[in-house]
Amino acid sequence: MTSYRPTFGPRNKKTTLKIALEEAIATHVFNATNTLPPVNGTAELPYVDTAYVADVKDRLTNVEARIQAMDAAGVDLAVLSLTMPGIEGIFDTPVAVETARKVNDEIHEIYTSGKYASRFRAFGCVAMQDPTKAAAEAERCVNELGFIGILINGFSNIGDANTIQYLDEPQCDPFWAKIAELNVPVYIHPRIPSPSQMRIYKGYEFLGGSPWGFGVETATHAIRLMVSGLFDRYPSLTVILGHCGEGLPFSLNRIDHRFRHFQPQHKQCKLSLTEYWKNNFVITTAGVMSDTTFFDTLKSCGEDRLLWSVDYPYEDYDEIAEWFDNLELSENTRAKIGWENARRILKLN
Amino acid sequence: MTSYRPTFGPRNKKTTLKIALEEAIATHVFNATNTLPPVNGTAELPYVDTAYVADVKDRLTNVEARIQAMDAAGVDLAVLSLTMPGIEGIFDTPVAVETARKVNDEIHEIYTSGKYASRFRAFGCVAMQDPTKAAAEAERCVNELGFIGILINGFSNIGDANTIQYLDEPQCDPFWAKIAELNVPVYIHPRIPSPSQMRIYKGYEFLGGSPWGFGVETATHAIRLMVSGLFDRYPSLTVILGHCGEGLPFSLNRIDHRFRHFQPQHKQCKLSLTEYWKNNFVITTAGVMSDTTFFDTLKSCGEDRLLWSVDYPYEDYDEIAEWFDNLELSENTRAKIGWENARRILKLN
Amino acid sequence: MTSYRPTFGPRNKKTTLKIALEEAIATHVFNATNTLPPVNGTAELPYVDTAYVADVKDRLTNVEARIQAMDAAGVDLAVLSLTMPGIEGIFDTPVAVETARKVNDEIHEIYTSGKYASRFRAFGCVAMQDPTKAAAEAERCVNELGFIGILINGFSNIGDANTIQYLDEPQCDPFWAKIAELNVPVYIHPRIPSPSQMRIYKGYEFLGGSPWGFGVETATHAIRLMVSGLFDRYPSLTVILGHCGEGLPFSLNRIDHRFRHFQPQHKQCKLSLTEYWKNNFVITTAGVMSDTTFFDTLKSCGEDRLLWSVDYPYEDYDEIAEWFDNLELSENTRAKIGWENARRILKLN
Amino acid sequence: MTSYRPTFGPRNKKTTLKIALEEAIATHVFNATNTLPPVNGTAELPYVDTAYVADVKDRLTNVEARIQAMDAAGVDLAVLSLTMPGIEGIFDTPVAVETARKVNDEIHEIYTSGKYASRFRAFGCVAMQDPTKAAAEAERCVNELGFIGILINGFSNIGDANTIQYLDEPQCDPFWAKIAELNVPVYIHPRIPSPSQMRIYKGYEFLGGSPWGFGVETATHAIRLMVSGLFDRYPSLTVILGHCGEGLPFSLNRIDHRFRHFQPQHKQCKLSLTEYWKNNFVITTAGVMSDTTFFDTLKSCGEDRLLWSVDYPYEDYDEIAEWFDNLELSENTRAKIGWENARRILKLN
Repeated sequence: MTSYRPTFGPRNKKTTLKIALEEAIATHVFNATNTLPPVNGTAELPYVDTAYVADVKDRLTNVEARIQAMDAAGVDLAVLSLTMPGIEGIFDTPVAVETARKVNDEIHEIYTSGKYASRFRAFGCVAMQDPTKAAAEAERCVNELGFIGILINGFSNIGDANTIQYLDEPQCDPFWAKIAELNVPVYIHPRIPSPSQMRIYKGYEFLGGSPWGFGVETATHAIRLMVSGLFDRYPSLTVILGHCGEGLPFSLNRIDHRFRHFQPQHKQCKLSLTEYWKNNFVITTAGVMSDTTFFDTLKSCGEDRLLWSVDYPYEDYDEIAEWFDNLELSENTRAKIGWENARRILKLN
Repeated sequence: MTSYRPTFGPRNKKTTLKIALEEAIATHVFNATNTLPPVNGTAELPYVDTAYVADVKDRLTNVEARIQAMDAAGVDLAVLSLTMPGIEGIFDTPVAVETARKVNDEIHEIYTSGKYASRFRAFGCVAMQDPTKAAAEAERCVNELGFIGILINGFSNIGDANTIQYLDEPQCDPFWAKIAELNVPVYIHPRIPSPSQMRIYKGYEFLGGSPWGFGVETATHAIRLMVSGLFDRYPSLTVILGHCGEGLPFSLNRIDHRFRHFQPQHKQCKLSLTEYWKNNFVITTAGVMSDTTFFDTLKSCGEDRLLWSVDYPYEDYDEIAEWFDNLELSENTRAKIGWENARRILKLN
Repeated sequence: MTSYRPTFGPRNKKTTLKIALEEAIATHVFNATNTLPPVNGTAELPYVDTAYVADVKDRLTNVEARIQAMDAAGVDLAVLSLTMPGIEGIFDTPVAVETARKVNDEIHEIYTSGKYASRFRAFGCVAMQDPTKAAAEAERCVNELGFIGILINGFSNIGDANTIQYLDEPQCDPFWAKIAELNVPVYIHPRIPSPSQMRIYKGYEFLGGSPWGFGVETATHAIRLMVSGLFDRYPSLTVILGHCGEGLPFSLNRIDHRFRHFQPQHKQCKLSLTEYWKNNFVITTAGVMSDTTFFDTLKSCGEDRLLWSVDYPYEDYDEIAEWFDNLELSENTRAKIGWENARRILKLN
Repeated sequence: MTSYRPTFGPRNKKTTLKIALEEAIATHVFNATNTLPPVNGTAELPYVDTAYVADVKDRLTNVEARIQAMDAAGVDLAVLSLTMPGIEGIFDTPVAVETARKVNDEIHEIYTSGKYASRFRAFGCVAMQDPTKAAAEAERCVNELGFIGILINGFSNIGDANTIQYLDEPQCDPFWAKIAELNVPVYIHPRIPSPSQMRIYKGYEFLGGSPWGFGVETATHAIRLMVSGLFDRYPSLTVILGHCGEGLPFSLNRIDHRFRHFQPQHKQCKLSLTEYWKNNFVITTAGVMSDTTFFDTLKSCGEDRLLWSVDYPYEDYDEIAEWFDNLELSENTRAKIGWENARRILKLN
């Protein structure tokens, strides 16, 4: 294309203030992927593309490469978190508790108080295997380490791979009470389902570990939180979901509609799911690069509760930044989704 | 509103040629809901609204009420099918085979050759517990009874509630071979997951029986068909999904994107899921009344492969017809989705 | 529809806090429609529907009927303005100046300080035929009468029907200087083009007086303001356009794109039109009831700069309120567009 | 971006069968831009970017460069037409008639029967200054030269710059009668308004020659055709509009709504504008690269009546092809808009 030819108004704009908040790291004190279900006998990212896996593994700990990728894509700040399954996949509760503390300390040392402290914030990890200790660690993360919230990789194992605990279960209440007191958001990140959950895919276990299985598992978890009445008990809670809401914007109206007739055993909530969606959920675009999916999600949560994200290093900063910078949007809206909402919701200064 | 006040151009138009194709009936020879998982000890629709349940049960067999509802909503033709879980939920294979035949005969007698034959067509039911016999019954449905295709309520039980068979499993091949030969569509309708599948919802089993669980189960079934290579073996197959594609339009791009890296055990297909979506799937709006969901689905499958439907008597003809008649659409497109596509795809004369 | 049948989540919600801000009145001191171009010899609304015209004329002054209509539609507050062409159509400058003052006093007496003062606010009218006096009247409206801004019916006549003045012309600067100082918005309302403008429709003059001609005239006026450099001189100005931006959201990108090559005689502005759109324009939905048009406009200006309105009594409160209350939107967004944005932008207490 | 990183499913697909149909040429026998209103004393494209003007002028006649650009962008076939204002701007009727014939012969010689005949089709030009002779030339174009339709650059001058004739005027009937008989489409292309029309922009004449003025002029022309009753007399006529319908999809509903009350002098048509839109108009995307504008237009005319185009050499093939190839669309729909509709509507073999 000869150089004097223009591109259209909204194209190729690079916004340089972007904030991303589903950005994974690995730590030296703990290899989070060791808690993955074994693939061919060893705990491994279930990928076939070895060049991709090697690149991802390097980027999970390579700070310089991360800063370089952020700079190239106009990303000012990344909110980091331990990659899945992480703490939630540790069977031994005391080990989980101890590991969470060590991981948070390393994140603080290397990232949020390190050479590039101005470029990073963090979601702490906690051991939901012991909700009271999780509450204490959450408090330490926020008050001592200056983390801006907590990220949890879905259900937690207790004792073995198939004994799992969801965040709406009664024993988790001390954790939520502390979160409400600390007034910080909790990001619920997908994790690979347990072997017994995988088995329901009957011969297609890889679907469980695919974005399809991830989304189903995480959306179901979010619905559990809504119907459990958690948000009636703690109306101020903010839960963050990635991947444009894990498919819920497509289905929420219909679920509410049918719930008017269905026998909702254990359904204890006072409001419609749409009401909780409006009041208690904030959505990120992590891993999404579909205009249609983006605009549905925008319509369902409004421009004050949608935040751009990437899911680096599983996704590319440059690819997803270019998509977002060129989306046909009011620049006022782009600024909100790109960084203003994150500054407000995460109380970034 | 004073009467001389106008409404806007596209509003309150009533199209009188509409065709609906996810329309449930019950039969006298077989109570399809008897194969539901027991609720409080008895096989029952899992609804709390008793007036609604009574009304639905009546409408499942009340031909006059059905015609009346169709007339009021401008529905010219309904393509009927046995309500779920139906034949697929019968544990005993010979009983399933025998029941399918009886049910098809009753549908033919009462509906497609009865007093209102000009208002009805039918999807036949088959016993996938014996794929060869299912193929034979499919042939009888099409060639002897004049049915326009086959509808299957998801997986089939074999022997007990937790032994389930999906349509991509090798033993189902004789059925698909016959379907390809007959050149008729197969509608995959949701069914309530098995007790063991329900258990993965851990205390929220009702989610499995909600539109959420239905959609997840059915979308997963559709993905299984794609990745199994079925459509490489039989490229001419047409599979119909209801509920605007069970959430797949929201997630398909991302799944294809991630499949480039994932280790797809048992993934044997040659094309991307998007390619199979484009070539082998036809979508209905059954049970949907969301503009956003409708337009996403339209964007993902194009106006020649999207068909209006209702899911009567679980949904209302008048409510969903009014929604569709007032959708902001080209009238050319409304005609295709309302009836022209159905006439072409189902070869209606 | 039997009563126990539900409607879908977002349907039939009635929001009772709505604010409307393109709501026309007539006054006793001045018949604004007397300045219409004569139709068959007499100044008349160019309508064929006599029942509609009689109804509109009554409603233009009938306060009780207005309150009743607002109540029925869940409209809490209406921001009133003199119906077009109004002051802008008066050929004699001193008469225009004097009439504007009298009209504003009557609006204040009957509406904003009358029996229903809590239900009304007002945009003042001014005589742009004398921009300095217009500035003075604007100041009186805001500081003495408590009006929340100024509404101008497009171009102003000076001396005769075909001598017209646009708001970007140099002599209008004292008015804009005062508006910037008062820090209130200016609503640019359509008016019927002049006879010489009408003639360009050559035999189809009615197109000039149709929403098509109205939109073209008003959008052109808005582009004039942008390219004149007005918003470079007064960056804080807020101009309000009705009818979802008079078609500009559909065309703005392309105009900006082509302006890179066009020879823009008299084009003196520093930024792209998209930048002025983002910074200096606020849009209302007055007169619109199209989902597509609404969502485009939302995408182009963002949810903080789009405001619901009706254009009563030319349109119905109930019809347009029902459309808006049922639009598939986040409730957070509906609240902003329905009333929160108006409260913020118009500084309503 | 490291090379093994994937892009998302729908991105970077290059469709190689595309057909474009608002593609401008200049001829040696007649310099179409000589009929432009003079800029600074000489007839000139009103552009400031001299490199762009030089490039455009070269490309208007450079066949090799055109083929190269088509190949690079995956464009199989271009339907050519004489650039505006062309024949319509010639004041002298006999000269106009003679020039049209010479131009059509040159187009046939160089393009549709030349070295690259397989890559080109053409819309003929006619002299509407003499509708009977225009009809005869249209017949010659179709039956002798094998052109696929006629393109007209808006109104025609008769005698001078300000005496203009629209296509709905009674004297044009012989032309339309012949078009109906030939059963070919007529493309109405924008042209720069006349000096007297420009004057209504009062000091901003450049707006008349901008895409804004072009769109307004052409959309008004289209509305004239609808309200004149032309399509009641010739229901089979197909009129093609470029630029996504010149803004009409944004406004059509509202115009129909208001027409119920407006006094439509000279309005003689039987149906609503929406009905004519549905039956008699086909739309191209020429010059558009906005997703929002594209999808609105698709919603308003349906996927069988929307055709991709570029407006080369004023726009780039590669830029607009890349936009279209990456639009988030069903591949079935992309094929229709990209080439299938053109093959059907233009009867291309």
